[in-house]
Amino acid sequence: MARTVTAAVILIGDELLSGRTQDSNLKTIAEFLHPLGVDVREARVIPDVHDTIVRTVDVLRTRHDYVFTTGGIGPTHDDITADAVAAAFGRPIDVRADAVAILKPWYEARGQDLTEGRMRMARIPAGAELIQNPVSAAPGFLIGNVFVMAGIPSVMRGMLQDVGHRIRGGAVVYAHTVRGVGMREGDIADALGALAKARPEVSFGSYPFMRLNGKTMEYGVNLVARCRDPDLIAASLEALIELVKAQGVKPEIDPKD
Amino acid sequence: MARTVTAAVILIGDELLSGRTQDSNLKTIAEFLHPLGVDVREARVIPDVHDTIVRTVDVLRTRHDYVFTTGGIGPTHDDITADAVAAAFGRPIDVRADAVAILKPWYEARGQDLTEGRMRMARIPAGAELIQNPVSAAPGFLIGNVFVMAGIPSVMRGMLQDVGHRIRGGAVVYAHTVRGVGMREGDIADALGALAKARPEVSFGSYPFMRLNGKTMEYGVNLVARCRDPDLIAASLEALIELVKAQGVKPEIDPKD
Repeated sequence: MARTVTAAVILIGDELLSGRTQDSNLKTIAEFLHPLGVDVREARVIPDVHDTIVRTVDVLRTRHDYVFTTGGIGPTHDDITADAVAAAFGRPIDVRADAVAILKPWYEARGQDLTEGRMRMARIPAGAELIQNPVSAAPGFLIGNVFVMAGIPSVMRGMLQDVGHRIRGGAVVYAHTVRGVGMREGDIADALGALAKARPEVSFGSYPFMRLNGKTMEYGVNLVARCRDPDLIAASLEALIELVKAQGVKPEIDPKD
Repeated sequence: MARTVTAAVILIGDELLSGRTQDSNLKTIAEFLHPLGVDVREARVIPDVHDTIVRTVDVLRTRHDYVFTTGGIGPTHDDITADAVAAAFGRPIDVRADAVAILKPWYEARGQDLTEGRMRMARIPAGAELIQNPVSAAPGFLIGNVFVMAGIPSVMRGMLQDVGHRIRGGAVVYAHTVRGVGMREGDIADALGALAKARPEVSFGSYPFMRLNGKTMEYGVNLVARCRDPDLIAASLEALIELVKAQGVKPEIDPKD
Protein backbone atom coordinates (compact mmCIF):
# COMPACT_ATOMS: atom_id res chain seq x y z
CA MET A 1 0.00 0.00 0.00
CA ALA A 2 1.28 3.48 -0.88
CA ARG A 3 2.64 5.56 1.95
CA THR A 4 0.91 8.56 3.53
CA VAL A 5 2.56 11.81 2.48
CA THR A 6 1.94 14.94 4.53
CA ALA A 7 2.53 18.63 4.07
CA ALA A 8 2.32 21.87 6.03
CA VAL A 9 1.58 25.31 4.63
CA ILE A 10 3.07 28.51 6.06
CA LEU A 11 1.30 31.71 5.03
CA ILE A 12 3.66 34.63 5.68
CA GLY A 13 2.53 38.22 5.93
CA ASP A 14 1.41 40.87 8.42
CA GLU A 15 -1.48 41.69 6.08
CA LEU A 16 -3.05 38.25 6.63
CA LEU A 17 -3.04 38.74 10.41
CA SER A 18 -4.28 42.33 10.37
CA GLY A 19 -7.34 41.29 8.37
CA ARG A 20 -6.28 43.49 5.45
CA THR A 21 -5.96 40.56 3.08
CA GLN A 22 -8.08 37.42 2.77
CA ASP A 23 -5.87 34.41 2.16
CA SER A 24 -6.83 32.08 -0.64
CA ASN A 25 -3.49 30.30 -1.09
CA LEU A 26 -4.14 27.59 1.49
CA LYS A 27 -7.20 26.36 -0.39
CA THR A 28 -5.37 26.53 -3.73
CA ILE A 29 -2.40 24.54 -2.42
CA ALA A 30 -4.61 21.95 -0.70
CA GLU A 31 -6.66 21.41 -3.86
CA PHE A 32 -3.47 21.16 -5.92
CA LEU A 33 -1.90 18.58 -3.61
CA HIS A 34 -5.00 16.42 -3.18
CA PRO A 35 -4.77 14.48 -6.48
CA LEU A 36 -1.02 14.04 -5.90
CA GLY A 37 -1.78 12.12 -2.71
CA VAL A 38 -0.35 14.73 -0.36
CA ASP A 39 -2.39 15.61 2.76
CA VAL A 40 -2.11 19.10 4.17
CA ARG A 41 -2.04 18.43 7.91
CA GLU A 42 -1.54 21.90 9.31
CA ALA A 43 -1.15 25.50 8.27
CA ARG A 44 0.21 28.51 10.07
CA VAL A 45 -0.26 32.18 9.40
CA ILE A 46 2.72 34.15 10.68
CA PRO A 47 3.96 37.76 10.49
CA ASP A 48 6.95 39.14 8.56
CA VAL A 49 9.28 38.53 11.51
CA HIS A 50 12.63 36.87 10.83
CA ASP A 51 12.87 34.69 13.93
CA THR A 52 9.25 33.55 13.65
CA ILE A 53 9.75 32.46 10.03
CA VAL A 54 12.99 30.63 10.88
CA ARG A 55 11.43 28.80 13.82
CA THR A 56 8.23 27.89 12.00
CA VAL A 57 10.04 26.53 8.93
CA ASP A 58 12.37 24.57 11.17
CA VAL A 59 9.60 22.94 13.20
CA LEU A 60 7.42 22.03 10.24
CA ARG A 61 10.08 20.78 7.81
CA THR A 62 11.06 17.98 10.17
CA ARG A 63 7.45 17.07 10.90
CA HIS A 64 6.19 16.77 7.30
CA ASP A 65 7.30 15.43 3.94
CA TYR A 66 6.81 18.84 2.36
CA VAL A 67 6.41 22.42 3.45
CA PHE A 68 4.99 25.20 1.28
CA THR A 69 5.49 28.85 2.13
CA THR A 70 3.73 31.77 0.46
CA GLY A 71 4.58 35.45 0.75
CA GLY A 72 7.53 37.67 1.52
CA ILE A 73 9.69 37.15 -1.57
CA GLY A 74 9.07 40.48 -3.33
CA PRO A 75 11.37 43.49 -3.75
CA THR A 76 10.60 45.51 -0.62
CA HIS A 77 12.30 45.73 2.78
CA ASP A 78 9.57 43.65 4.43
CA ASP A 79 10.19 40.73 2.04
CA ILE A 80 12.41 38.67 4.29
CA THR A 81 11.25 35.10 3.63
CA ALA A 82 14.22 34.01 1.47
CA ASP A 83 16.76 35.11 4.07
CA ALA A 84 14.78 33.51 6.90
CA VAL A 85 14.43 30.18 5.06
CA ALA A 86 18.17 30.20 4.30
CA ALA A 87 18.80 30.77 8.02
CA ALA A 88 16.46 27.89 8.91
CA PHE A 89 18.66 25.59 6.78
CA GLY A 90 21.92 27.20 7.95
CA ARG A 91 22.77 28.03 4.32
CA PRO A 92 24.34 31.23 2.99
CA ILE A 93 22.22 33.43 0.74
CA ASP A 94 23.22 35.97 -1.89
CA VAL A 95 22.21 37.29 -5.29
CA ARG A 96 22.49 34.30 -7.64
CA ALA A 97 23.50 34.47 -11.27
CA ASP A 98 20.78 32.06 -12.45
CA ALA A 99 18.10 34.25 -10.88
CA VAL A 100 19.61 37.45 -12.29
CA ALA A 101 19.64 35.76 -15.71
CA ILE A 102 15.85 35.48 -15.43
CA LEU A 103 15.18 38.96 -14.05
CA LYS A 104 17.53 41.00 -16.27
CA PRO A 105 15.99 40.26 -19.70
CA TRP A 106 12.46 40.42 -18.23
CA TYR A 107 12.89 43.99 -16.92
CA GLU A 108 15.00 45.07 -19.94
CA ALA A 109 12.26 43.96 -22.29
CA ARG A 110 9.84 46.15 -20.33
CA GLY A 111 12.16 49.15 -20.12
CA GLN A 112 12.25 48.90 -16.33
CA ASP A 113 15.33 49.28 -14.14
CA LEU A 114 16.82 46.37 -12.24
CA THR A 115 16.69 48.40 -9.02
CA GLU A 116 18.29 47.43 -5.73
CA GLY A 117 14.84 46.28 -4.60
CA ARG A 118 14.35 44.06 -7.66
CA MET A 119 17.82 42.59 -7.15
CA ARG A 120 16.59 41.40 -3.74
CA MET A 121 14.38 38.96 -5.66
CA ALA A 122 17.54 37.30 -7.03
CA ARG A 123 18.65 36.44 -3.48
CA ILE A 124 18.42 32.65 -3.38
CA PRO A 125 19.89 30.33 -0.73
CA ALA A 126 22.94 28.30 -1.79
CA GLY A 127 21.90 24.91 -3.14
CA ALA A 128 18.24 25.81 -3.70
CA GLU A 129 16.55 24.97 -7.02
CA LEU A 130 14.61 27.77 -8.69
CA ILE A 131 10.85 27.54 -9.19
CA GLN A 132 9.78 29.20 -12.43
CA ASN A 133 7.37 32.12 -12.26
CA PRO A 134 5.49 32.41 -15.55
CA VAL A 135 3.49 35.43 -14.35
CA SER A 136 6.07 37.97 -13.20
CA ALA A 137 9.49 36.28 -13.62
CA ALA A 138 10.94 36.57 -10.09
CA PRO A 139 11.43 32.92 -9.14
CA GLY A 140 10.51 30.93 -6.07
CA PHE A 141 12.78 28.17 -4.87
CA LEU A 142 12.94 24.69 -3.42
CA ILE A 143 15.39 24.03 -0.61
CA GLY A 144 15.39 20.64 1.08
CA ASN A 145 11.70 19.81 1.33
CA VAL A 146 10.52 23.43 1.49
CA PHE A 147 8.87 25.12 -1.50
CA VAL A 148 9.12 28.91 -1.19
CA MET A 149 6.51 30.69 -3.29
CA ALA A 150 5.01 34.12 -3.88
CA GLY A 151 2.08 35.47 -1.90
CA ILE A 152 0.09 37.05 -4.74
CA PRO A 153 -2.44 34.33 -5.60
CA SER A 154 -2.07 34.53 -9.40
CA VAL A 155 1.74 34.35 -9.14
CA MET A 156 1.55 31.52 -6.62
CA ARG A 157 -0.74 29.54 -8.94
CA GLY A 158 1.70 30.10 -11.77
CA MET A 159 4.57 28.74 -9.68
CA LEU A 160 2.58 25.58 -8.81
CA GLN A 161 2.98 24.55 -12.45
CA ASP A 162 6.67 24.05 -11.73
CA VAL A 163 6.06 22.26 -8.43
CA GLY A 164 4.02 19.13 -9.24
CA HIS A 165 6.80 17.24 -11.02
CA ARG A 166 9.03 17.54 -7.94
CA ILE A 167 6.52 15.94 -5.57
CA ARG A 168 6.68 12.25 -4.70
CA GLY A 169 3.06 11.70 -3.82
CA GLY A 170 1.40 8.98 -1.80
CA ALA A 171 -1.90 7.20 -1.63
CA VAL A 172 -4.67 9.44 -2.91
CA VAL A 173 -7.53 10.10 -0.53
CA TYR A 174 -10.88 9.46 -2.20
CA ALA A 175 -13.68 11.75 -1.11
CA HIS A 176 -17.42 11.87 -1.74
CA THR A 177 -19.84 14.56 -0.73
CA VAL A 178 -23.57 13.99 -0.35
CA ARG A 179 -25.68 17.10 0.18
CA GLY A 180 -29.02 17.16 1.93
CA VAL A 181 -30.81 20.47 1.38
CA GLY A 182 -33.31 21.25 4.15
CA MET A 183 -31.75 18.63 6.39
CA ARG A 184 -30.56 19.65 9.87
CA GLU A 185 -27.25 18.49 11.27
CA GLY A 186 -28.78 17.75 14.66
CA ASP A 187 -31.24 15.31 13.06
CA ILE A 188 -28.56 13.16 11.41
CA ALA A 189 -25.80 13.45 14.01
CA ASP A 190 -26.70 10.22 15.81
CA ALA A 191 -26.93 8.13 12.62
CA LEU A 192 -23.71 9.64 11.26
CA GLY A 193 -21.93 8.95 14.54
CA ALA A 194 -23.02 5.30 14.38
CA LEU A 195 -21.75 5.08 10.79
CA ALA A 196 -18.39 6.58 11.77
CA LYS A 197 -18.11 4.07 14.60
CA ALA A 198 -18.95 1.14 12.29
CA ARG A 199 -16.34 2.18 9.68
CA PRO A 200 -13.33 3.51 11.58
CA GLU A 201 -11.13 3.42 8.44
CA VAL A 202 -13.32 6.07 6.86
CA SER A 203 -13.29 9.70 7.98
CA PHE A 204 -16.82 11.11 7.98
CA GLY A 205 -17.39 14.85 8.17
CA SER A 206 -20.53 16.90 8.49
CA TYR A 207 -20.63 20.49 7.25
CA PRO A 208 -23.83 22.44 7.74
CA PHE A 209 -24.45 25.41 5.51
CA MET A 210 -26.81 28.35 5.10
CA ARG A 211 -27.01 30.15 1.79
CA LEU A 212 -29.20 32.49 -0.17
CA ASN A 213 -31.04 30.76 -3.01
CA GLY A 214 -32.64 33.65 -4.84
CA LYS A 215 -34.34 35.48 -1.99
CA THR A 216 -34.85 32.57 0.40
CA MET A 217 -32.34 31.41 2.96
CA GLU A 218 -31.63 27.75 2.35
CA TYR A 219 -29.94 25.47 4.86
CA GLY A 220 -28.67 21.94 4.78
CA VAL A 221 -25.74 19.66 5.44
CA ASN A 222 -22.87 18.39 3.31
CA LEU A 223 -21.79 14.94 4.42
CA VAL A 224 -18.29 13.95 3.38
CA ALA A 225 -16.62 10.54 3.45
CA ARG A 226 -12.84 10.28 2.95
CA CYS A 227 -10.55 7.27 2.79
CA ARG A 228 -7.74 5.70 0.79
CA ASP A 229 -9.57 2.47 -0.13
CA PRO A 230 -11.66 2.72 -3.33
CA ASP A 231 -14.03 -0.10 -2.32
CA LEU A 232 -14.66 1.33 1.11
CA ILE A 233 -15.31 4.77 -0.32
CA ALA A 234 -17.95 3.37 -2.70
CA ALA A 235 -19.70 1.60 0.17
CA SER A 236 -19.50 4.77 2.28
CA LEU A 237 -21.09 6.84 -0.47
CA GLU A 238 -24.01 4.38 -0.54
CA ALA A 239 -24.35 4.58 3.24
CA LEU A 240 -24.45 8.39 3.17
CA ILE A 241 -27.08 8.36 0.43
CA GLU A 242 -29.24 6.00 2.55
CA LEU A 243 -28.73 8.21 5.60
CA VAL A 244 -29.99 11.28 3.74
CA LYS A 245 -32.94 9.38 2.25
CA ALA A 246 -33.92 8.20 5.75
CA GLN A 247 -34.51 11.90 6.55
CA GLY A 248 -37.00 12.13 3.70
CA VAL A 249 -34.54 14.32 1.77
CA LYS A 250 -33.35 13.84 -1.82
CA PRO A 251 -29.57 13.30 -1.71
CA GLU A 252 -27.48 15.44 -4.07
CA ILE A 253 -24.08 14.07 -5.02
CA ASP A 254 -21.35 16.65 -5.51
CA PRO A 255 -20.14 16.27 -9.12
CA LYS A 256 -16.67 17.61 -8.25
CA ASP A 257 -15.75 14.40 -6.40
CA MET B 1 1.25 54.29 27.38
CA ALA B 2 -1.30 51.51 26.93
CA ARG B 3 0.03 47.97 26.84
CA THR B 4 0.31 45.78 23.75
CA VAL B 5 -2.34 43.07 23.74
CA THR B 6 -1.90 40.03 21.51
CA ALA B 7 -4.09 37.20 20.32
CA ALA B 8 -3.85 33.95 18.41
CA VAL B 9 -6.55 32.37 16.28
CA ILE B 10 -7.00 28.61 15.93
CA LEU B 11 -9.12 27.50 12.96
CA ILE B 12 -10.23 23.94 13.57
CA GLY B 13 -11.52 21.63 10.86
CA ASP B 14 -10.39 18.99 8.37
CA GLU B 15 -12.39 20.81 5.70
CA LEU B 16 -10.10 23.86 5.89
CA LEU B 17 -7.02 21.70 5.29
CA SER B 18 -8.53 19.60 2.50
CA GLY B 19 -9.36 22.73 0.52
CA ARG B 20 -13.09 21.97 0.70
CA THR B 21 -13.84 25.15 2.62
CA GLN B 22 -12.36 28.61 2.30
CA ASP B 23 -11.82 30.15 5.73
CA SER B 24 -13.05 33.67 6.26
CA ASN B 25 -13.12 33.69 10.06
CA LEU B 26 -9.51 34.79 10.53
CA LYS B 27 -10.12 38.02 8.62
CA THR B 28 -13.41 38.63 10.49
CA ILE B 29 -11.78 38.13 13.89
CA ALA B 30 -8.75 40.28 13.01
CA GLU B 31 -10.97 43.12 11.80
CA PHE B 32 -13.14 42.79 14.91
CA LEU B 33 -10.14 42.93 17.27
CA HIS B 34 -8.31 45.78 15.55
CA PRO B 35 -10.35 48.68 17.02
CA LEU B 36 -10.19 46.99 20.43
CA GLY B 37 -6.40 47.29 20.36
CA VAL B 38 -5.75 43.56 20.12
CA ASP B 39 -3.12 42.37 17.61
CA VAL B 40 -3.55 38.94 16.05
CA ARG B 41 0.03 37.66 16.05
CA GLU B 42 -0.42 34.15 14.68
CA ALA B 43 -3.05 31.76 13.43
CA ARG B 44 -3.06 28.02 13.01
CA VAL B 45 -5.28 25.80 10.93
CA ILE B 46 -5.50 22.34 12.48
CA PRO B 47 -7.51 19.16 11.88
CA ASP B 48 -10.27 17.66 14.03
CA VAL B 49 -7.76 15.64 16.06
CA HIS B 50 -8.08 15.67 19.84
CA ASP B 51 -4.39 15.73 20.77
CA THR B 52 -3.58 18.37 18.18
CA ILE B 53 -6.30 20.67 19.50
CA VAL B 54 -5.21 20.16 23.11
CA ARG B 55 -1.56 20.85 22.32
CA THR B 56 -2.26 23.89 20.13
CA VAL B 57 -4.58 25.52 22.67
CA ASP B 58 -2.07 24.86 25.41
CA VAL B 59 0.87 26.40 23.56
CA LEU B 60 -0.97 29.48 22.38
CA ARG B 61 -2.93 30.35 25.54
CA THR B 62 0.29 30.89 27.48
CA ARG B 63 1.88 32.89 24.68
CA HIS B 64 -0.95 35.40 24.08
CA ASP B 65 -3.43 37.49 26.04
CA TYR B 66 -6.32 35.90 24.16
CA VAL B 67 -6.96 32.86 21.99
CA PHE B 68 -9.94 32.47 19.65
CA THR B 69 -10.95 29.09 18.27
CA THR B 70 -13.49 28.50 15.53
CA GLY B 71 -15.05 25.20 14.50
CA GLY B 72 -15.86 21.82 15.96
CA ILE B 73 -18.64 22.69 18.41
CA GLY B 74 -21.61 21.30 16.48
CA PRO B 75 -23.72 18.19 17.11
CA THR B 76 -21.80 15.53 15.16
CA HIS B 77 -19.18 12.98 16.20
CA ASP B 78 -16.36 15.04 14.62
CA ASP B 79 -17.19 18.06 16.79
CA ILE B 80 -14.59 17.52 19.48
CA THR B 81 -13.35 21.04 20.22
CA ALA B 82 -15.18 21.52 23.55
CA ASP B 83 -13.79 18.29 24.98
CA ALA B 84 -10.29 19.06 23.72
CA VAL B 85 -10.31 22.59 25.18
CA ALA B 86 -11.53 21.20 28.51
CA ALA B 87 -8.63 18.74 28.42
CA ALA B 88 -6.18 21.55 27.67
CA PHE B 89 -7.31 23.27 30.88
CA GLY B 90 -7.51 20.02 32.87
CA ARG B 91 -11.19 20.71 33.56
CA PRO B 92 -14.07 18.19 33.58
CA ILE B 93 -16.73 18.58 30.90
CA ASP B 94 -20.36 17.46 30.85
CA VAL B 95 -23.81 18.55 29.70
CA ARG B 96 -24.49 21.77 31.58
CA ALA B 97 -27.91 22.91 32.78
CA ASP B 98 -27.43 26.53 31.64
CA ALA B 99 -26.68 25.38 28.11
CA VAL B 100 -29.61 22.94 28.06
CA ALA B 101 -31.84 25.81 29.25
CA ILE B 102 -30.90 27.65 26.04
CA LEU B 103 -31.20 24.69 23.65
CA LYS B 104 -34.42 23.12 24.98
CA PRO B 105 -36.88 26.01 24.32
CA TRP B 106 -35.14 26.81 21.01
CA TYR B 107 -35.70 23.33 19.58
CA GLU B 108 -39.14 22.95 21.20
CA ALA B 109 -40.30 26.19 19.59
CA ARG B 110 -39.24 24.74 16.23
CA GLY B 111 -40.78 21.32 16.81
CA GLN B 112 -37.38 19.65 16.63
CA ASP B 113 -36.09 16.93 18.93
CA LEU B 114 -33.29 17.52 21.40
CA THR B 115 -31.38 14.54 19.99
CA GLU B 116 -28.29 12.97 21.50
CA GLY B 117 -26.27 14.91 18.92
CA ARG B 118 -27.85 18.22 19.84
CA MET B 119 -27.25 17.49 23.53
CA ARG B 120 -23.51 17.35 22.67
CA MET B 121 -23.76 21.09 22.10
CA ALA B 122 -24.65 21.54 25.79
CA ARG B 123 -21.30 19.99 26.81
CA ILE B 124 -19.42 22.90 28.39
CA PRO B 125 -16.24 22.70 30.49
CA ALA B 126 -16.69 23.31 34.23
CA GLY B 127 -16.17 26.97 35.08
CA ALA B 128 -16.52 28.24 31.50
CA GLU B 129 -18.79 31.22 30.75
CA LEU B 130 -21.26 30.81 27.90
CA ILE B 131 -21.04 32.95 24.76
CA GLN B 132 -24.49 33.74 23.37
CA ASN B 133 -25.32 32.56 19.85
CA PRO B 134 -28.08 34.78 18.42
CA VAL B 135 -28.12 32.86 15.12
CA SER B 136 -28.67 29.22 16.06
CA ALA B 137 -28.75 29.12 19.90
CA ALA B 138 -26.01 26.57 20.66
CA PRO B 139 -23.56 28.63 22.72
CA GLY B 140 -19.82 29.07 22.53
CA PHE B 141 -17.83 29.55 25.72
CA LEU B 142 -14.97 31.41 27.34
CA ILE B 143 -12.58 29.44 29.52
CA GLY B 144 -9.53 31.19 30.95
CA ASN B 145 -8.39 33.41 28.08
CA VAL B 146 -9.75 31.14 25.31
CA PHE B 147 -12.90 32.05 23.38
CA VAL B 148 -14.42 28.94 21.77
CA MET B 149 -16.69 29.80 18.85
CA ALA B 150 -18.57 28.20 15.99
CA GLY B 151 -17.03 27.60 12.56
CA ILE B 152 -19.96 28.69 10.38
CA PRO B 153 -19.08 32.30 9.55
CA SER B 154 -22.55 33.76 10.16
CA VAL B 155 -22.79 32.02 13.54
CA MET B 156 -19.26 33.04 14.47
CA ARG B 157 -20.04 36.67 13.64
CA GLY B 158 -23.15 36.47 15.80
CA MET B 159 -21.10 35.18 18.74
CA LEU B 160 -18.60 38.06 18.42
CA GLN B 161 -21.38 40.38 19.62
CA ASP B 162 -21.05 38.69 23.01
CA VAL B 163 -17.24 38.77 22.98
CA GLY B 164 -16.19 42.44 22.78
CA HIS B 165 -17.29 43.42 26.28
CA ARG B 166 -15.07 40.70 27.77
CA ILE B 167 -11.89 41.94 26.09
CA ARG B 168 -9.47 44.24 27.89
CA GLY B 169 -7.87 45.89 24.90
CA GLY B 170 -4.62 47.75 24.53
CA ALA B 171 -3.16 50.53 22.45
CA VAL B 172 -4.91 50.73 19.12
CA VAL B 173 -2.71 50.43 16.04
CA TYR B 174 -3.39 53.23 13.57
CA ALA B 175 -3.06 52.29 9.93
CA HIS B 176 -3.13 54.21 6.67
CA THR B 177 -3.13 52.81 3.17
CA VAL B 178 -1.99 54.79 0.13
CA ARG B 179 -2.65 53.17 -3.23
CA GLY B 180 -0.66 53.85 -6.38
CA VAL B 181 -2.42 52.43 -9.43
CA GLY B 182 0.00 51.69 -12.27
CA MET B 183 2.96 51.89 -9.89
CA ARG B 184 5.38 48.95 -9.69
CA GLU B 185 6.66 47.63 -6.39
CA GLY B 186 10.19 47.30 -7.73
CA ASP B 187 10.28 51.01 -8.57
CA ILE B 188 9.42 52.18 -5.04
CA ALA B 189 11.18 49.46 -3.02
CA ASP B 190 14.38 51.46 -2.46
CA ALA B 191 12.57 54.64 -1.34
CA LEU B 192 10.22 52.66 0.89
CA GLY B 193 13.14 50.80 2.44
CA ALA B 194 14.83 54.13 3.23
CA LEU B 195 11.61 55.41 4.81
CA ALA B 196 11.29 52.27 6.94
CA LYS B 197 14.89 52.71 8.11
CA ALA B 198 14.32 56.36 8.97
CA ARG B 199 11.18 55.63 11.02
CA PRO B 200 11.78 52.32 12.83
CA GLU B 201 8.76 52.87 15.14
CA VAL B 202 6.46 52.64 12.11
CA SER B 203 5.77 49.36 10.32
CA PHE B 204 5.65 49.90 6.57
CA GLY B 205 4.16 47.28 4.29
CA SER B 206 3.97 47.03 0.52
CA TYR B 207 1.24 44.98 -1.13
CA PRO B 208 1.23 44.75 -4.90
CA PHE B 209 -2.01 43.84 -6.62
CA MET B 210 -3.36 42.90 -10.02
CA ARG B 211 -7.07 43.21 -10.68
CA LEU B 212 -9.53 43.38 -13.51
CA ASN B 213 -10.97 46.86 -13.98
CA GLY B 214 -13.68 46.29 -16.57
CA LYS B 215 -11.78 44.35 -19.23
CA THR B 216 -8.27 45.67 -18.55
CA MET B 217 -5.85 44.18 -16.07
CA GLU B 218 -4.79 46.89 -13.67
CA TYR B 219 -1.79 46.64 -11.39
CA GLY B 220 -0.42 48.75 -8.59
CA VAL B 221 0.78 48.80 -5.02
CA ASN B 222 -0.90 49.44 -1.70
CA LEU B 223 1.50 51.01 0.76
CA VAL B 224 0.54 50.64 4.40
CA ALA B 225 1.91 52.38 7.48
CA ARG B 226 1.05 51.11 10.95
CA CYS B 227 1.96 52.38 14.40
CA ARG B 228 0.51 53.23 17.80
CA ASP B 229 1.46 56.92 17.82
CA PRO B 230 -1.18 59.20 16.20
CA ASP B 231 1.37 61.93 15.35
CA LEU B 232 3.82 59.54 13.78
CA ILE B 233 1.08 57.91 11.72
CA ALA B 234 0.01 61.30 10.32
CA ALA B 235 3.60 62.08 9.31
CA SER B 236 3.96 58.61 7.78
CA LEU B 237 0.84 59.09 5.70
CA GLU B 238 2.32 62.31 4.31
CA ALA B 239 5.60 60.55 3.54
CA LEU B 240 3.79 57.75 1.65
CA ILE B 241 1.80 60.29 -0.36
CA GLU B 242 5.03 62.05 -1.35
CA LEU B 243 6.62 58.72 -2.25
CA VAL B 244 3.77 57.87 -4.62
CA LYS B 245 3.75 61.36 -6.15
CA ALA B 246 7.50 61.05 -6.81
CA GLN B 247 6.59 58.18 -9.15
CA GLY B 248 4.35 60.49 -11.16
CA VAL B 249 1.31 58.60 -9.84
CA LYS B 250 -1.78 60.09 -8.20
CA PRO B 251 -2.00 58.70 -4.65
CA GLU B 252 -5.35 57.25 -3.57
CA ILE B 253 -6.04 57.17 0.15
CA ASP B 254 -8.05 54.22 1.38
CA PRO B 255 -11.20 55.68 2.97
CA LYS B 256 -11.57 52.68 5.31
CA ASP B 257 -8.61 53.80 7.42
